[in-house]
Amino acid sequence: VIASEQLHILRTNRRELARLLTRVENNAAGAELATLYPFTGGAHIIGVTGAPGTGKSSLVSALARYYRGENKRIAIVAVDPTSPFTGGAILGDRIRMRDLSGDPDIFIRSMANRGNLGGLARTTADAIRVLDAVGYEVILVETVGAGQGEVDIARTAQTTLVVEAPGLGDNVQAIKAGILEIADILVVNKADNPAAENTVRALRAMLDLGHRAERTMHHGRLLPAADPGFAEDSAWQVPIVQTIATEKTGIDTLATQIAAHRQYLYTSGTLARRDQARIEAELLDRLRDALLDRLLGQVDSSLFSDRIAAIQQREVTPDQVVNDLLNHYS
Amino acid sequence: VIASEQLHILRTNRRELARLLTRVENNAAGAELATLYPFTGGAHIIGVTGAPGTGKSSLVSALARYYRGENKRIAIVAVDPTSPFTGGAILGDRIRMRDLSGDPDIFIRSMANRGNLGGLARTTADAIRVLDAVGYEVILVETVGAGQGEVDIARTAQTTLVVEAPGLGDNVQAIKAGILEIADILVVNKADNPAAENTVRALRAMLDLGHRAERTMHHGRLLPAADPGFAEDSAWQVPIVQTIATEKTGIDTLATQIAAHRQYLYTSGTLARRDQARIEAELLDRLRDALLDRLLGQVDSSLFSDRIAAIQQREVTPDQVVNDLLNHYS
Repeated sequence: VIASEQLHILRTNRRELARLLTRVENNAAGAELATLYPFTGGAHIIGVTGAPGTGKSSLVSALARYYRGENKRIAIVAVDPTSPFTGGAILGDRIRMRDLSGDPDIFIRSMANRGNLGGLARTTADAIRVLDAVGYEVILVETVGAGQGEVDIARTAQTTLVVEAPGLGDNVQAIKAGILEIADILVVNKADNPAAENTVRALRAMLDLGHRAERTMHHGRLLPAADPGFAEDSAWQVPIVQTIATEKTGIDTLATQIAAHRQYLYTSGTLARRDQARIEAELLDRLRDALLDRLLGQVDSSLFSDRIAAIQQREVTPDQVVNDLLNHYS
Repeated sequence: VIASEQLHILRTNRRELARLLTRVENNAAGAELATLYPFTGGAHIIGVTGAPGTGKSSLVSALARYYRGENKRIAIVAVDPTSPFTGGAILGDRIRMRDLSGDPDIFIRSMANRGNLGGLARTTADAIRVLDAVGYEVILVETVGAGQGEVDIARTAQTTLVVEAPGLGDNVQAIKAGILEIADILVVNKADNPAAENTVRALRAMLDLGHRAERTMHHGRLLPAADPGFAEDSAWQVPIVQTIATEKTGIDTLATQIAAHRQYLYTSGTLARRDQARIEAELLDRLRDALLDRLLGQVDSSLFSDRIAAIQQREVTPDQVVNDLLNHYS
């Protein structure tokens, strides 16, 4: 009864939902997350990532509109792992989404980096759980930039779109940034650019190369799969979809591919496998931080700064200090 | 005596040095690192980062040649945090450095991502310590990509160059990628491109904006400094240097600015402050991982997979499992 009441409030009162998400960001919503957690699992979580300038935000807006046309409730989570030093972020892209925010069935939330990146991936995962439990049927998770942060956050998504745009100097930014491997669907946005065909061709070549490399590696056993939840997805052929997000061109094709991928996730058992890999990684991350917190609660802070000074004076290595602390507090 | 003997071997035998660095990568060089650590501190560690296509590798090559002209011993550490899923990396850029590798006083090492990014930042820090102790006077640390990984690795450097190039689609990639804040010197490479002036202007505007924002925040106390070692460096005015690395144009000006920055680091006390912040962050990272390793050694692996399954079945939240494990193994 309590849970259903809480769900009702969060479904009908956006301000309450926003407040809960702030508590989630501050790691102060453990009990509420536990109450809501059994109600998760209904949403399709779609990650959208890619280099700056590819038009990710426009694409997210276009997808949100499309799903609204299907009368679905949409949440958009915009994650910005940048600016670790100021704690803030220039979310200029967000402005483009403003026209969506009048719709009561679209909920938009920005998640900024408050401290370490691991924390951001974790609070994002928890925020998505809340939105999932509350009944948002499609959750679009947009990440700014292209690095490890995106990769971590992409793990939270069920279907990951990697967005490319032609004419960004380098033919294909994603390849160098190493995010091609996390793509379930590749989107070439700004497809009215004459260079789009080149980008599509380059991506197709990279996909072929990737598949061959994967086969070689599996046969030659050169490499253990770093992440079995992802590596075994070779049955899914990554499609390349061309869009012009600002004109809504190609969005229906993209939505069809997204639906096909979701279908694939369920029928192939990949969803459960990925879930398991993701949960394991998340659990280890949380354990790591919780163990550190506990240790720091035991260690005298003057001892700690004394040890830092000793490392700085080159009397001991960081490794030796770690071993000493572990032996002393066991 | 043992240390000096070891140092002599590592100084004269590149193969031994390479082997030691492999042990560092495999976290199997604790004792050797402890022996070498007191001999570190002589090198100037210069980080070079920026988006793909800016010509970072050419710039690193040009700088290496410049310092060779001053008869210094140079190490180049090329770090690739991408491709977390395959474990490998396409280090095509490295090929451009091949012509440097005939010089016995230039040592080139690639560090790829073996698992988690935290591990890479750590093994890179240790590799740099080895090269420092062994007597490389300039250590150029080049990172591929532009994300949190770069930021972490940049902390290891004393002087960080952020490289931009005109005409990469977006005017200024670094701003969106959030790496502008870590720049001690901004380099606009490919300065023969007619768009270079625009890039310089945009960067200058961003720097001005950044300084103003910083002042506002300090006055308004909106934000605690996320990283005091970095945030207090406002006495250093970040210069913008234009280069054409492939033609060695602007490299002497850049080297002058690098030397000025090093001078500043020492005279202002910033070096010690940054060192302290970096060591603290590194110590916490190492503690986190060591504590997790110890816990996992105590927990029965079947219990662990049982708990993962329970999370997947939505019976418990990750948070609850963490608390249970912590209470049980304390």
